[in-house]
Amino acid sequence: MTIVRFAENPLIRIDDVPPSRPDFKVVGAFNAGVAQLGEETILLLRVAEMPIESPDDQLAVPVLNERDGSLEIRHLPLSDAEYDYTDPRVVKKLGSFVYLTSISHLRVARSRDGVRFRVEDRPAMFPADAAEAWGIEDPRVTPIGDRYYITYSAVSSKGVAVRLAVTEDFAAFERLPVVLPPENKDAAIFPGTIGGKYYMLHRPVPRAIGAPEMWIAESPDLIHWGNHRHLMGLRPGSWDGVRMGGGAVPIETGEGWLELYHGADSTDRYCMGAVLLDKRDPGKVLARSRVPILEPEAEYEANGFFGGVVFSCGALLRGRTVRMYYGAADETTACAELPLEDIYRTF
Amino acid sequence: MTIVRFAENPLIRIDDVPPSRPDFKVVGAFNAGVAQLGEETILLLRVAEMPIESPDDQLAVPVLNERDGSLEIRHLPLSDAEYDYTDPRVVKKLGSFVYLTSISHLRVARSRDGVRFRVEDRPAMFPADAAEAWGIEDPRVTPIGDRYYITYSAVSSKGVAVRLAVTEDFAAFERLPVVLPPENKDAAIFPGTIGGKYYMLHRPVPRAIGAPEMWIAESPDLIHWGNHRHLMGLRPGSWDGVRMGGGAVPIETGEGWLELYHGADSTDRYCMGAVLLDKRDPGKVLARSRVPILEPEAEYEANGFFGGVVFSCGALLRGRTVRMYYGAADETTACAELPLEDIYRTF
Repeated sequence: MTIVRFAENPLIRIDDVPPSRPDFKVVGAFNAGVAQLGEETILLLRVAEMPIESPDDQLAVPVLNERDGSLEIRHLPLSDAEYDYTDPRVVKKLGSFVYLTSISHLRVARSRDGVRFRVEDRPAMFPADAAEAWGIEDPRVTPIGDRYYITYSAVSSKGVAVRLAVTEDFAAFERLPVVLPPENKDAAIFPGTIGGKYYMLHRPVPRAIGAPEMWIAESPDLIHWGNHRHLMGLRPGSWDGVRMGGGAVPIETGEGWLELYHGADSTDRYCMGAVLLDKRDPGKVLARSRVPILEPEAEYEANGFFGGVVFSCGALLRGRTVRMYYGAADETTACAELPLEDIYRTF
Repeated sequence: MTIVRFAENPLIRIDDVPPSRPDFKVVGAFNAGVAQLGEETILLLRVAEMPIESPDDQLAVPVLNERDGSLEIRHLPLSDAEYDYTDPRVVKKLGSFVYLTSISHLRVARSRDGVRFRVEDRPAMFPADAAEAWGIEDPRVTPIGDRYYITYSAVSSKGVAVRLAVTEDFAAFERLPVVLPPENKDAAIFPGTIGGKYYMLHRPVPRAIGAPEMWIAESPDLIHWGNHRHLMGLRPGSWDGVRMGGGAVPIETGEGWLELYHGADSTDRYCMGAVLLDKRDPGKVLARSRVPILEPEAEYEANGFFGGVVFSCGALLRGRTVRMYYGAADETTACAELPLEDIYRTF
């Protein structure tokens, strides 16, 4: 496996991103959607923020006022036995999530060389209504015609759903409806139609029966989706044995649709692998990585907000080389280049 | 509340339904979709079957061969510590469902008076492929034009999804695609378009965040669905405090869309209630039952395969009276009549 991590990694660190308001700190700038816009490489970063430290006996949590869209900081007394604070990412009450300790928005970063990025000062998309009151996470960007469609996780007290937005210039964004109800994540639309239909990968998380695995759906118009089919599942005992989901937007190659996906094992170690889908029927798996194409081995991948994670939401093909951007340790953004032939060698 | 249970209840008992094969016994004939076809009232029953007793030291479970669609009986040794047999409905292994102890299909019953039904000898729809290998459950029947669209739970090892089928005569049925991925149940399509769009109620079951609550979606063509919105939620401490979902296909009244839905409390006691939705925007709740319209109080509702359950999948409006068919105790089919005005009085 000839994988070349950029020497400049991580390309974007949390200190590179100004918080959206003075009483917030940025705790993650990761899992970015990727697009080519003219000469520029665009990263649409997921930026996670937390309220700056509150008094020792309180936990500050961000809460969107669903009526007027304003963001409030609520202070919870740590002595309150009603709340369970053991997981640093969430606050629970009676076993259910009642607050997240951070809230994510989307932020644009631009680059001429794909290596040195300028992060914009202001959010591109900030949680705006009840359907995404707990945050906007893990965008995937798909170019279709002269527009870019963004699938993202819309998180609220009602669950994690898949929502759509669209932009032409990464300056103005238009929100579209929720396209998949909870619980669903890791949705990525294929670039353009195949046999007259749009296709999307998605990853439902069922409760009673089934596992977090990859499905595929079809649409006539990008808004309404149907013909959901199970695409590929977990391989117990393997690096993708416990959870998995789509990663980058599928890339068209001579051999088929190349999908870079993530998988995790029972230790929550997230790796990236690849699957090749049939060019005319992307619901058909042609080949799949036996071993990962990228494992969390570099220092910034092994250690961070949530160590041992590499997680890609977007990649670009240059000739026969894949330039894969990815979140490292749920904190920073990195990039690696992989020749297509080496990816195919994992099949 | 003037609710009149039919004196003939239960209208259909398990002994009224011939099994689909000689080595099976019928354990449930319940949760029927309802339609008016000419002079006839049609019930599309969910019929649950189990293999007839096997040797004392074994449990017989039905398994669909996903390759050729044939049904096999597998015998599991009860002494095998790998399997967990404590729940009579399922067999678990490592905490996951690996087999159901019964398998459901759909069966037509016909009546001239809506009371005395003739149950057909053969299944109308039997599990046919991998997407429904564990069974077909809880159909809702929606008349649109001169066709009847059936939403049902397609159960497989991949989860519980919502699938569509269509018929003109309840003799020949055409399967359509899966319209909602797992985990989702209790889907019911509105009869006809509203403002040019089709609408469907559905009930996702998210895992990490959220609860089993009612959502609404839109479609241009009945196959592809989008603009999913949360419609109504649980009322902790109430009769619909722990789980809920759509019941009957929505009924058009002068006051709005009347939806008869089910709710359960922490004791798994299932009642029926009602909600009134805006005629032009069915995503808008106008009123909702404070108290149930039907509680499991009759003997055949309180006792049975799973006692304490009334669960409707279909109702017909006759003048200002609702004729609600419903599953009783997850075993038989019953019917009750309720004046609209009395339902409204629960709001």
